[in-house]
Amino acid sequence: MAWRLATGRWSVCVSCWRHRSKVCCHPPRISQQKTPLLIPPSARVRALLARMTCLLVPAVACAAPAPAGHKTTGHGRPQPKIRVTRGVRSKVSAARAGMDGGTSAPPPEPAIAPDAVINLELGDPTMYEAFWREVGERAAVAIPGWSGMSYFSNAQSLCWFLDPEFEREVRRVHRLVGNAAVDDGYHLVVGTGATQLFQAAMYALSPAGAQRPVGVVSPAPYYSSYPPQTDLLLSGFYRWAGDANAFDGDGHIELVCSPNNPDGAIREAVLSSESGKAIHDLVYYWPQYTPITGAAAHDIMLFTMSKVTGHAGARLGWALVKDRDVAKKMVYFVDRSTIGVSKDSQLRAAKILAVVSDAYGPDEEDDTRLRLFDFARRRMEERWRALRAAVAATGAFSLPEETAGHCNFSRQTVAAYPAFAWLRCEKDGVEDCAEFLRGHGIVARGGEQFGGDARCVRVNMLDRDGVFDVLIDRLFSIT
Amino acid sequence: MAWRLATGRWSVCVSCWRHRSKVCCHPPRISQQKTPLLIPPSARVRALLARMTCLLVPAVACAAPAPAGHKTTGHGRPQPKIRVTRGVRSKVSAARAGMDGGTSAPPPEPAIAPDAVINLELGDPTMYEAFWREVGERAAVAIPGWSGMSYFSNAQSLCWFLDPEFEREVRRVHRLVGNAAVDDGYHLVVGTGATQLFQAAMYALSPAGAQRPVGVVSPAPYYSSYPPQTDLLLSGFYRWAGDANAFDGDGHIELVCSPNNPDGAIREAVLSSESGKAIHDLVYYWPQYTPITGAAAHDIMLFTMSKVTGHAGARLGWALVKDRDVAKKMVYFVDRSTIGVSKDSQLRAAKILAVVSDAYGPDEEDDTRLRLFDFARRRMEERWRALRAAVAATGAFSLPEETAGHCNFSRQTVAAYPAFAWLRCEKDGVEDCAEFLRGHGIVARGGEQFGGDARCVRVNMLDRDGVFDVLIDRLFSIT
Repeated sequence: MAWRLATGRWSVCVSCWRHRSKVCCHPPRISQQKTPLLIPPSARVRALLARMTCLLVPAVACAAPAPAGHKTTGHGRPQPKIRVTRGVRSKVSAARAGMDGGTSAPPPEPAIAPDAVINLELGDPTMYEAFWREVGERAAVAIPGWSGMSYFSNAQSLCWFLDPEFEREVRRVHRLVGNAAVDDGYHLVVGTGATQLFQAAMYALSPAGAQRPVGVVSPAPYYSSYPPQTDLLLSGFYRWAGDANAFDGDGHIELVCSPNNPDGAIREAVLSSESGKAIHDLVYYWPQYTPITGAAAHDIMLFTMSKVTGHAGARLGWALVKDRDVAKKMVYFVDRSTIGVSKDSQLRAAKILAVVSDAYGPDEEDDTRLRLFDFARRRMEERWRALRAAVAATGAFSLPEETAGHCNFSRQTVAAYPAFAWLRCEKDGVEDCAEFLRGHGIVARGGEQFGGDARCVRVNMLDRDGVFDVLIDRLFSIT
Repeated sequence: MAWRLATGRWSVCVSCWRHRSKVCCHPPRISQQKTPLLIPPSARVRALLARMTCLLVPAVACAAPAPAGHKTTGHGRPQPKIRVTRGVRSKVSAARAGMDGGTSAPPPEPAIAPDAVINLELGDPTMYEAFWREVGERAAVAIPGWSGMSYFSNAQSLCWFLDPEFEREVRRVHRLVGNAAVDDGYHLVVGTGATQLFQAAMYALSPAGAQRPVGVVSPAPYYSSYPPQTDLLLSGFYRWAGDANAFDGDGHIELVCSPNNPDGAIREAVLSSESGKAIHDLVYYWPQYTPITGAAAHDIMLFTMSKVTGHAGARLGWALVKDRDVAKKMVYFVDRSTIGVSKDSQLRAAKILAVVSDAYGPDEEDDTRLRLFDFARRRMEERWRALRAAVAATGAFSLPEETAGHCNFSRQTVAAYPAFAWLRCEKDGVEDCAEFLRGHGIVARGGEQFGGDARCVRVNMLDRDGVFDVLIDRLFSIT
């Protein structure tokens, strides 16, 4: 539903529009307009917002009463929200009300005060909470008191702290999705998040007995945590050396993040494999974010629960490693730095991943509510449409062009919907986009932290619905 | 029950004797003796073994049939073992049989083949499994699928990844035991085991802008993992500098482990606090291992679930930190190295610690089976008696003298029962005790790894009963 305000700006009722409702009961908000003018969108605006499903319906004044259970969702209102959408969302309230069959009811989504600052600086994946609430007790685990006393999970294994059931489910979900050549002799190393494994990989790849630390590089814009994580202890083995495109030293370790954090770009190594090594950070290479174009088969590939299923609190990642000696060195690093990885998280993750894979099995054909990748892709698509609409409407920002490709998993051509928005401020006089957004109650990570332009910011696209709605509302309010 | 073999050596039926049984149905094992001579122990042997309760009963030949449910426990027999002892142990089989009320039955204790090598090299605390089996469902947790999606546990807290409930239970158990001045303004920082926090503390204490790495020291024998953990990345901030007693540099970080790993000694810093800083590793300062003589109040104190409750697989430790800025730096380290700590482990540990503290509350007065410290102290006492008896009987080894003191927690004078035995080989011609023991199917960590004597080894005292029984059996067999 589109509204044109007296200021001449366009506003969209994000809630109705995300849910493709043809009836809107929400008055337009934003700015000081008490009585907005309601004018159908111009041809130019319609063209700009062509991807927005509900804008294809002519804008109408809203007089219809709200359907039962359809409450307003915009404009800094308190939570929880209950929506009319069928399927995944319609069951959320049941879970909240304690009817999810055995596990205690989750707390309601935190309320957001109208003047609250929203923090989208970290990549908190709380968007997934709604899905797991819907799944209910199928994804719950009970852990008895006597479980997990030993340091060992599999004393005979190369990675002796890797839970065999977790390993089985990791390999299974990769086979299901087809995003990694997990069966081609790859060793699996578990870590306390991909973060620990990234350090383990640098440790394992550093040349033995080198006179000075090997340079660690990544093409800008690169994940802002790479430099401080690399140089956390000023290691004698490796040292951050900046933008890969500007590197001309001997020997290197290149961090290849694809899809890239922060801008979602699909990447390959830019430096030669003859002069150095690569670590492929593929934590976003899942079908909700990007078309799965093939099974990646790099030397070291990093993944994490945080970005597949949203369980960031588990602090659980894994590496697929081609070379046995490299895998052994990574295991040694994890051993020495934390003596292994939480068994509780592994046990739980094994269950979570099993639920994910089971939902795509022959027995679950009709129950699409339980299909994680479908849920997440749908949600990402809605969010990116909302964001692009807001960006187009305000004219104050720009985003990277949308890309698309054939996805082997969904068997269709789909667009990429990155987990972060790499937002560039196009307003004259604004040199620091992060500071500019802070003035509008939005905390995002400034572009210079990614080795990029301060006119850019990285915005988390995976927060809860309430937070995302506020983001869109506030972006619309920026002229 | 003591048996004298035809060789002239004494043998003890460890199982009956540990359980103070006055009836023994176990034939003596060891060596080639098929028909041992049964002779009462001499005065010398009685004196040597004076601490062994059941040796005070005159040795008798065993003819009585085994009581119902009393199966042999010695000599490489398969598991599980079911014993006649009342109390904690008598309920273990119930838990194993799936009668522990809601959580699935635990797997049986792993069988140990007669010729199996037993690995007591790591400090695996699987001894505690029997206790938690007994506790049953009270200690179980159910974690719903929607739990733990966010990186944050308490965004407003200094340690934003610390679960508030876990913090509450940590402080509560310290108040109960009285081993740390937890309420005197201490900040709590959670880590992936004490191992990560030890590194976080070194990072936080390293002088800013120093020309060269600060020296990290500990008096020998020191925990063997200190050197490789310290130098894992050849940090520019700190570097292992060996035995604190031999150190004469400017500035230092001293690691004070008390009770000490490997030898159980009670320690204080040996270097001046004017020239450096100390990190107190108090992971064994719990009443099952040592008398609690007061509430420790050092600048940085490290603890871990592994050594309190036995949940080593949780990889969960905590630091009590006096200085806010130091705590903040430690939080930064954990953030950068693993972006926090498993929420699943924290959630579970909160429950486990609550069960521990609840058992010492007014409502649990009669149910001593649920008292962790009582269980563990009893078990440690039994094990140390068995070990000292074996050592005394063989004459091939020696152990540090037993120490005792008034324990504020148990309100009585008690002996120290360290989590490791620091065993010295006294046999002529044996220079490498670890190698010598390997020849007898026992893997222990060699003394030189602790900056000590290769004639010493560190032996884990916290493994499962079956493994410990085999250890004692094999020690007895060494002449």
